Amino acid sequence: MTKREYVIRQIAKTNKKNYENYVVTRIYHLLNRIDVKFITQQYVNRPEGHALTDMYFPQIKLHVEIDEPFHKKQIGLDIHRETDIIQATDHHISRIKITDDLYSINSQITILIKQIRAKIKLIEKRKQWEAWDLEKEFDPNHFRKKGYLDVYENPAFRKIVDACNCLGQNYKAVQQAWFKSKIYPNHYLWFPKFYENEDWDNQISKDGTIITEKCKDLEKYNSWFNTVTSNLVKRITFPRSIDNLGFRLYRFAGVFETDLESSSLENGVVHRLKETRIEINI
Amino acid sequence: MTKREYVIRQIAKTNKKNYENYVVTRIYHLLNRIDVKFITQQYVNRPEGHALTDMYFPQIKLHVEIDEPFHKKQIGLDIHRETDIIQATDHHISRIKITDDLYSINSQITILIKQIRAKIKLIEKRKQWEAWDLEKEFDPNHFRKKGYLDVYENPAFRKIVDACNCLGQNYKAVQQAWFKSKIYPNHYLWFPKFYENEDWDNQISKDGTIITEKCKDLEKYNSWFNTVTSNLVKRITFPRSIDNLGFRLYRFAGVFETDLESSSLENGVVHRLKETRIEINI
Repeated sequence: MTKREYVIRQIAKTNKKNYENYVVTRIYHLLNRIDVKFITQQYVNRPEGHALTDMYFPQIKLHVEIDEPFHKKQIGLDIHRETDIIQATDHHISRIKITDDLYSINSQITILIKQIRAKIKLIEKRKQWEAWDLEKEFDPNHFRKKGYLDVYENPAFRKIVDACNCLGQNYKAVQQAWFKSKIYPNHYLWFPKFYENEDWDNQISKDGTIITEKCKDLEKYNSWFNTVTSNLVKRITFPRSIDNLGFRLYRFAGVFETDLESSSLENGVVHRLKETRIEINI
Repeated sequence: MTKREYVIRQIAKTNKKNYENYVVTRIYHLLNRIDVKFITQQYVNRPEGHALTDMYFPQIKLHVEIDEPFHKKQIGLDIHRETDIIQATDHHISRIKITDDLYSINSQITILIKQIRAKIKLIEKRKQWEAWDLEKEFDPNHFRKKGYLDVYENPAFRKIVDACNCLGQNYKAVQQAWFKSKIYPNHYLWFPKFYENEDWDNQISKDGTIITEKCKDLEKYNSWFNTVTSNLVKRITFPRSIDNLGFRLYRFAGVFETDLESSSLENGVVHRLKETRIEINI
């Protein structure tokens, strides 16, 4: 995908939402920076639950919400278990209020663009600015050079093999979702589906800190439960999801450890988030 | 309708046409002049027939066409006899070519915006610039102050009564489409429908210069034909049409005179365009 296609597809998400389309295109065109990534209609985790933001700038952790007084937003209707939902605890939200007056909408956007530019300048000053690069953003080598994965930066991979190789597995192709790490002692790489499927019924809590794992094969259930709860391992977890353009994504969710006290044959095995960051020193 | 609604509705015409939406919004937002009117998807008369332009700036007579190599445009499919079609003989057309490279699309638009600004500046220098004003543009008093109607400026009215009063009829309400002028000797004001209806089958040539008029009431036909071809009058003509947002419009088409040689019982009465401008000295 080229940047042209990416931008066009993101804007196309605002099709038929005329005010959203106006605000999103105005911000995009007047900001006029091809090195700034944006995502329209990104699901985020909030303390009060999931929310959908209208325009999201990941590099500066800024979300734009467009408030239409005459149009109540239908939040959550499009959400599936596979929907990509990012952590947004330290993110900022700016609101654009749709009023009757075009001047007022435009001047709110002018102020917002100044804020965006100021945020970028600050990061550039700290020498931490990374220009948006479609090639780099899911490239394992990019993260290896960087030296870490951090949940709060929402890193992701397009393929399981890329995530594996980023963490030193060195595979050509893979067909599974569970790998013993060659680098990190007693760690496994895990690519769970957090929606019910033929073999598993796994769930993650809304805040992304608790995973409940349940094998669906009743014949194997007890032996599976005993194995998991006796051989305790750390799980470097990349839930499988679908991004807002419909592409597969494995987004780093952190390192999880099994919580024996909360686990039971009835409720399944519970894993808790222990580390939000993993160093890559390979 | 407010300017906000107008702009939103014009942009909404590019819904689902993603590249058009990108280019139109980029031009609109970067031009960033609330005094400049634009119309998306305007039908125009060209020597080779009707055409649809993607973005039209009436104040500077400039059309933008967006060329998508991978998307053949379906021209003419939406056209009805009631569709508002403007004269565009002295208009300029700029093309934006959709290429693979966002930089290239953007720099074409940057150049176009410079051209638009230069055109506006030139008109401002001549002291002929009229800021876009939703109140004024269909207001009879505005045209009375101006002192004329000119086909090449595509003046139009929302209501028959407004066109009548602009030319000195001084009505409160009207219910017909044919009025003897109180000001211009031997002139009539005419608001024909150029699509077949219960009573009439009137047509106008694509270049807007020849009208063929046919009464559909066969009992009255001969007497109608004889009356029209013996009492020769000049017709100040405002065809009824529908603009691109779906609103009724009576756009000045010029002053027509009956052409006896071309008229026949079989073909109907033919009127030819004689004046493209009418002075208003009331």
